[in-house]
Formats: sequence, C-alpha cells, structure tokens
Amino acid sequence: MASIYRSLTINIWKEMMCYSDFPIPADYPNYMHHSKILKYFRMYAEHFKLLEHIRFQTSVKKVTQRPDFSRTGQWEVVTENKDGLEERHIFEAVICCSGHFNYPNLPLKDFPGIETFEGHYFHSWDYKGPEDMHGKRVVVIGIGNSGGDIAVEGSRVAEQVYLSTRSGAWVIRQVSDNGEPVDRFNSRFVHVLFKVLPMSFLNWLGEKKLNAMYDHAMYGLKPKHRLFSQIPVINDDLPFKILSGSVLIKPNIREIRGSTVVFDDGSAVENVDTIVFATGYNYDFPYLPNNAMYKSGHRVGLYKHVFPPNLEHPTLAIVGFIHSDGAIMPQAEMQARFVARVFAGHKKLPANQAMIKAVEKDTKQIEKSYVVSKLTPLQVDFVEYMDDLAKDIGVRPSLLWLLFTDFPLFKRVFWGPVTAYQYRLMGPGKWIGARKAIFTQLDRMYQPLKTRKV
Amino acid sequence: MASIYRSLTINIWKEMMCYSDFPIPADYPNYMHHSKILKYFRMYAEHFKLLEHIRFQTSVKKVTQRPDFSRTGQWEVVTENKDGLEERHIFEAVICCSGHFNYPNLPLKDFPGIETFEGHYFHSWDYKGPEDMHGKRVVVIGIGNSGGDIAVEGSRVAEQVYLSTRSGAWVIRQVSDNGEPVDRFNSRFVHVLFKVLPMSFLNWLGEKKLNAMYDHAMYGLKPKHRLFSQIPVINDDLPFKILSGSVLIKPNIREIRGSTVVFDDGSAVENVDTIVFATGYNYDFPYLPNNAMYKSGHRVGLYKHVFPPNLEHPTLAIVGFIHSDGAIMPQAEMQARFVARVFAGHKKLPANQAMIKAVEKDTKQIEKSYVVSKLTPLQVDFVEYMDDLAKDIGVRPSLLWLLFTDFPLFKRVFWGPVTAYQYRLMGPGKWIGARKAIFTQLDRMYQPLKTRKV
Ligand SMILES: NC(=O)c1ccc[n+]([C@@H]2O[C@H](COP(=O)([O-])OP(=O)(O)OC[C@H]3O[C@@H](n4cnc5c(N)ncnc54)[C@H](OP(=O)(O)O)[C@@H]3O)[C@@H](O)[C@H]2O)c1
Ligand SMILES: NC(=O)c1ccc[n+]([C@@H]2O[C@H](COP(=O)([O-])OP(=O)(O)OC[C@H]3O[C@@H](n4cnc5c(N)ncnc54)[C@H](OP(=O)(O)O)[C@@H]3O)[C@@H](O)[C@H]2O)c1
Repeated sequence: MASIYRSLTINIWKEMMCYSDFPIPADYPNYMHHSKILKYFRMYAEHFKLLEHIRFQTSVKKVTQRPDFSRTGQWEVVTENKDGLEERHIFEAVICCSGHFNYPNLPLKDFPGIETFEGHYFHSWDYKGPEDMHGKRVVVIGIGNSGGDIAVEGSRVAEQVYLSTRSGAWVIRQVSDNGEPVDRFNSRFVHVLFKVLPMSFLNWLGEKKLNAMYDHAMYGLKPKHRLFSQIPVINDDLPFKILSGSVLIKPNIREIRGSTVVFDDGSAVENVDTIVFATGYNYDFPYLPNNAMYKSGHRVGLYKHVFPPNLEHPTLAIVGFIHSDGAIMPQAEMQARFVARVFAGHKKLPANQAMIKAVEKDTKQIEKSYVVSKLTPLQVDFVEYMDDLAKDIGVRPSLLWLLFTDFPLFKRVFWGPVTAYQYRLMGPGKWIGARKAIFTQLDRMYQPLKTRKV
Repeated sequence: MASIYRSLTINIWKEMMCYSDFPIPADYPNYMHHSKILKYFRMYAEHFKLLEHIRFQTSVKKVTQRPDFSRTGQWEVVTENKDGLEERHIFEAVICCSGHFNYPNLPLKDFPGIETFEGHYFHSWDYKGPEDMHGKRVVVIGIGNSGGDIAVEGSRVAEQVYLSTRSGAWVIRQVSDNGEPVDRFNSRFVHVLFKVLPMSFLNWLGEKKLNAMYDHAMYGLKPKHRLFSQIPVINDDLPFKILSGSVLIKPNIREIRGSTVVFDDGSAVENVDTIVFATGYNYDFPYLPNNAMYKSGHRVGLYKHVFPPNLEHPTLAIVGFIHSDGAIMPQAEMQARFVARVFAGHKKLPANQAMIKAVEKDTKQIEKSYVVSKLTPLQVDFVEYMDDLAKDIGVRPSLLWLLFTDFPLFKRVFWGPVTAYQYRLMGPGKWIGARKAIFTQLDRMYQPLKTRKV
C-alpha cells in the first residue's frame, strides 16, 4: 500500500495534474492538499460512473496465463476479499496499476552500526506527522521529496534536524516567477528550446537561475549531476530552514554508534533520538508470473513503458509505471487510452523482437540522458512521451493545422502550459469541452487566489 | 511581560542584530531561533559581568521625582520582589527599557458580534504553538509578523486558515538574492541611493522586485501604501501557503455571528472554531509620572527618541523605544551609549524649548515619510538614526578618513552591511576588535552553512 503523511500537499499544479476531460474545479487551490485530491478523484469516479466497475476491499493474489493462453491470450486472476474468501476469475486482458511506491527501501546494510542505535528509526513510509519529534534530535536520510518535506516539518518542533544526503540535489520552488506555479512554464515552446539548444547551455542557464534564488553550493545542496539529468526536489520552505539553521545539511552517514551518528566528512552528531530513512521505494509485482517481467538495465522493460514485449498476446499492460518532469495522472490516462485501443484491436503492437529492440533502445537513451539507479530506474520527457503515445492513439494535436485554422488556440497550445486537454482536441475520444478548457486554464489558476480584492 | 511562541525565529540577520563589540559566534545560524538568542544574551551578560548588577525577579512599581528634583535631578524608585516585599531606593538617574510589546491590543469593539462568537478567541500574545488548531477552521486577524507566522504554522495542522487583513502588506523573504540574508544588503551605499533617488522611483523598483517573486495583487496581499512607507512583513513560507490554499487571504471582518465570520466584501466563512487577534500591541509606562511623558502626535515625544524633553534635568531616559528597518539591539545599544555620555556629563542636552522643537520636527518628518498610527506611532531610518546618535557620542565612522587611510576597511564600511562594529572603530568606547569583526562578518555568514562540503 502507498502511504502519505497528514500535511502532504501535491507538488504538481492542478491544471497539469488533472485528467484531460475533467478539469479540477476552478476554486480548488493551485497545489492541492491530499484531501482535495481525493475529493477530485471521487468526483471523477462519480461523473464517469466508475464506482459500479470497481470491486473494493479485494486484493489480487495471483495473475497467471491460462493453459490456452497461446490461443486465447486469457488470464486467470485469483482475488481475496476482506473476509479472506478467494475467488478465481478469467479475464480477456489485465491492466496492472499497483504503482511504484509501495515497498519501502530500508537499506540498513549501508548504515554500519544501525543495530547499535539507541534511538528510534523508521522509514518515511511510516511518517504521519511530527508529533513524536518535539524537542528531539532528528537525522533524516535522503533528500527526495519525502526527506525534504519531513525535515522541514520536523524542524518546527525538533531541537535540531540534520538532513543527510549522499548525492545532493537541485531544489526548486513551486512559487515561480511572479508567483505563478512553476509547472505553468512547461510549454511546447520551452520543449522546442530543449530540442534545439545544447543541453550544457540549458543546464548552465537553469542552474544559474536556481543559484540566483539561493546558491546551492553555499547551502550545501549542490549535487554532482547537472540540473536536467534528474527530476529536481521540490520544496519552497527548505531554503529558509537551512538559513535559519533549523535544518542542517549533512553528507552521507559513515557509521552509527549507540546514539552517535558519524558522517562521511568525519563530523559526528551526538544524542540522536530519531533517524528517518527517507530512502525511497522499491517496486514489485508479486502477483505476476516471472516470465511477464522482461528486465532491461535497471528497469522493467516495457514497450512504450506499458506492454511487456515478450508475451504472445498483448493482453497484459502496466499503467502508471512512469517517471517524468510531469504529473503521473495525465500520463497514466494516456497510457490507459493507448491500452484501450490495443485491447480493442484498433491498434496493433509490433512483433516481439521489434518491441524488445525498441525497449533496449529506450533503455540506452534513458541511461544516456538521466541519472538512473535501482530505485529510480527510468525517466522520460513529459511532452515527448505524451506526444508519442498520442500519435499512436491518433490524438496528438496538429500544431500546423491549428496555426492556420484556429490561431488563438494555437497560441495557447504552443506557448501555454502543456495541459492534458490538448489531447482531447481531435481524434478518438475527442472532447467537445477541450478547447474551452484550454482557454480557461489560466482563469482556474487565478480563481482560488481571488479571496481579497485589491 | 513580552511573549513569544515556541517556534519563533528572529527576522534579523545575526550580523545586523548583535552588539557592536560582541559578535555572535561564527557557527550560530544566520537567523536565530529564540533559544539561541537567549544563549547569546547570556554570553554577553557573562562576558561583561553584568549579572552582578541586575536584580532579578523584582518589579518596578513606581518611579517619581524626589521633592528636591529641581536641585538634584534624583528619582525615587519603589520595587517589589517576588515575595511581595516593597523597597524604596534613591537613584541619580533612571533608564526605562520596558519595551513596546507588552500590552496586547485586543480591539474587540471593532468586531461587532464578537460577543456572540461560539468558538475560542485569543490574542497572539497567548499563542505558543498550533497544537489546539488540529483540524480546526481558524481566522487570524492582522498581517504583522505575528499574524503571518501564526497563519503559516497553523495551516500545517488546521483544516483551513483565513488570514484577514485590513490594509494588506508588502511581504519580503529573508532568503534574498543568491540565498544571502536580506539585511546583508542594507549598506551605506544603498542608503546614499535612498538619499539621491526619488522615493517614487525607489518604491517602483522595490515593488517590481517583490512582485517578480510573487505578484502581491494576484496573491491578495497588495496594500494601499507604498513599499518604503512601512516596515514590510517578513515571511518566507507565506507565498506557498497562499498558492496551495492552506492560507486564504481575506479582507477585514465586518461582523461575527455565532460561528460565522462575515468579511468586508460580503463573503462569509462558517463553522469557525478559532479567531486569533494578531492585532499588535499597545505600550505603557504605568510606573512613570504623567508629567514625564510628553505627547507628540501619535508618539511619546522623546528627544532623539530617548529623553523626555520637558524635564528640568536629563536624568530619565527611555531606551529601546524605536522602530526602523534595522534591529532593535544595536539601536538600543547606541541609545544606551548616548545616555551614558549624557548622565556622565560628557554631553549636554539642549534647553527644554529647543528639545521640544526638535521633537515636534521629528514628529512631522515621521508623519510625512511613514504610515503611522496609535499602534505604530513612529519609525526612523536605521542608518540615519544610528549615525546621528553616533555623531553626538563621537563614534560616527569618518568615511573620508577611511577612504584615504584604510581603503580595504572603507570598502567594507561603505558597500558592506551597516553592522554595529562600524561604531566601535573610533571615539569613546573604541574597540580594538572592531576592524577585524568587519573583515570577518561575511565569514560568519558562511560558517554555519558549511555543514556539507560540495
Ligand atoms: N509533495 C509531494 O507531492 C511528494 C512528497 C513526497 C514524495 N513524493 C513523490 O514520491 C516519490 C518518492 O519520493 P521519496 O522522496 O520517498 O524517494 P526518492 O525520491 O527516491 O528519494 C530517495 C532518497 O533517498 C536516498 N537514498 C536511497 N538509498 C540510499 C542509501 N542506501 N544511502 C543513502 N541515501 C539513499 C536517495 O539518494 P540518491 O539520490 O543519492 O540515490 C534519495 O535522496 C517521488 O516520486 C516523489 O516525487 C511527492
Ligand atoms: N519573527 C520575528 O522576529 C517576529 C515575529 C512576530 C512579531 N515580531 C515583531 O513584533 C512586533 C509586533 O508584531 P505584531 O505582528 O504582533 O503586530 P503589528 O506588526 O503591529 O501588526 C498588527 C496587525 O494587526 C492589524 N490590526 C491592528 N488593529 C486592528 C483592527 N482594529 N482591525 C483590524 N486589524 C487590526 C494591523 O493592521 P493595519 O496594518 O491595518 O493597522 C496589523 O496588520 C513587530 O515589531 C514585529 O516585527 C517579530
């Protein structure tokens, strides 16, 4: 099961995270607390009458190919309901959407002496709020978004928070130029710049802009990798916490001795009460047969990040197993639309060998462009990936066509944020409201801020 | 008694708040939590052997002129210790340092219907932490530094925080360009610019810079007054809280009805659990005789913001009763040095009539330059005020002299932050360590950030 903490606010702008044919209500805030996101999901499910298709409180124990899979492509699915009752079902096709962040990565073996630790340690998966940190000395390991959030929140009540990072990180603000959401600047125009300008120049420019906000070297954050080779950490509060000393950035941990934590630079912190392992997540699909999982580099090799390339029939898909500089929701939705077309027979996948070749090519490309590891095995470019799937589905907006037939729309599609409504303008699943949704997307940005007239 | 909350971190950079001959330890953070400030004060008191001169747990009940005041200038002081024991003392001179923020301003009469309020209300003076705000709907009134801090902190746990402001505010970040403390840019050079450039241009420039961080109109914050006519609110966390909707900015309150709060624009918030009056403070010197307090406009008329201008003898002084764009500590110290010279007879004050004239002139000047009110009766320009007192004491650094005799020092005094060490370079009370303290002030800025080598 995935887990969040009470104060969690999503770090994706509402217009960039919503589903393509169901804008988030205008008065909802630009960055939503998880309670609001749940409300939105409920609205969506109600609107599209999804609830009747969902079997709640039921877990999937096993998914296996039927004996006649070669002929039928069918799967047998074993489920267990909350009373422990097992059931067997036969399905034409299966989509796995069990996510990436369910298995806490607790790398104790990398922390010699952890068994001697006299305080309390736990993984960020178990973190709900800072209540047990009052007056404590806390070490947070890992500067992903979890580590950053927990360090900042804990520092309000702890005696001292130390944030230990092995690699450092580029940290960005959600409150961007003029106070607009930072992802509002993720446009096709910027995407074109990224295609034509050298990456070293873009990195230089981006890092310069970040350092002008606060010098990442001076703040002890600067990583070895360049800005655009890894998704940056998002945290508006961290810089002041560092400047006011309530969060102290530290290097990786060398050793733990009783209640003392020794860092790689030889410095030591004594009387540590709490260690939080914000060390990310592993993934697993324990219910799937081994032969469905094709391994490629660090990642699960999936054709277009969706289909195992080595099955006789394209009747198994993985949706939502993707990382980019954009939100998971529209990407998962696009994957789902792609899968629906394949399952319905409107779209044919290439032969196994061709798919495997494509997968290996993708893996190479990913390894060239990004810092990947066992925990972060893949990354794609949001616009490129969305456009690629959209093309296969037949819903990629034609810029040239728009330029000549609907210039006001073209302007917004090209210079405005790449919101998912763009993929409902034409083709299968076209939504009549898409154009209007694009014209009103900035209104929905201003709306929730209009609480006091000036 | 003054009061602070548990999480309070001062909004003045350590190099700008320290006393002129006692730098804050290099490894202390740039913006200090109140526990660290207390430690620094204790170090100071120990270093200068002050403790033996302080009578703790004793309150002053009454300060009156002795019958022979005209001749002696002496005062009778009645104190009461913690066991209720009263004592009478005779003193040659008295300094009042009882501060500005001891009497909570609770303007209930401005909030019709407050007596029908079904929730809990209190003044920010009583606020210690957000523990009672879990899951509550909270209205904070007033956007001073207290209101901003409480709204931000409360919003982490409350269901919703509304921040109601009558006038709006300009809000600045402590994390300034490149991540340096914002007060690090308060230099003599900037001060000269403020003398030579038109105020309307400076306001335009400053507001443009602030709005580039986040548009104060879009965020509902924009006040009617211009940037430099009031000390801005300092808050690094507020913008993201507004963008993520956990703090909603609202106009002034029109009326309260049961648990409903109605705002000036007619909008209403229901089921309010808590109202926090972050409505500032009144001041009072109840122990002083009425004739010692000369009233001028909204303010207590004090010659150079220190001496009542209407007494026969200059044997009563008020220290620390000052507001500017700089820290209270060095200003109070400078006032104390001034007072010491007057009390010791090294410096003669003008005649009563001349002092009263000067006071009235100051009042006019203040009313012209700043937004003043009963609660914020006065404001001065930090550098101008420090220099003025320093000249009277004989410790104002001569820039011309430095330019020709010690150019490296000149550079730092002119372009660097106006730290109080500058007033220990020459004249009475000269401190041998002052030059070095100036040369090392930026080292002390970097030092606490060096917790991870990059
Ligand atoms: N507000 C939000 O929306 C929000 C909040 C939290 C999380 N999230 C999302 O949830 C996902 C998971 O985030 P996360 O922060 O939990 O994990 P994460 O992004 O994978 O970060 C894990 C961190 O732990 C470090 N680490 C891992 N193993 C380590 C080891 N053996 N020794 C030392 N350091 C180690 C990594 O350092 P290296 O870089 O050196 O490997 C990295 O800094 C992300 O997609 C994130 O964006 C979102
Ligand atoms: N971190 C820190 O270092 C820190 C933290 C908190 C406070 N402080 C300092 O402590 C001092 C006091 O700050 P404070 O925030 O408590 O008080 P303050 O700065 O005087 O602010 C009072 C606020 O209440 C509003 N207000 C007053 N009477 C009102 C009424 N009748 N109706 C509606 N609004 C009303 C004022 O609005 P108008 O502007 O419309 O009058 C103002 O916004 C300041 O010097 C501050 O800098 C420092």
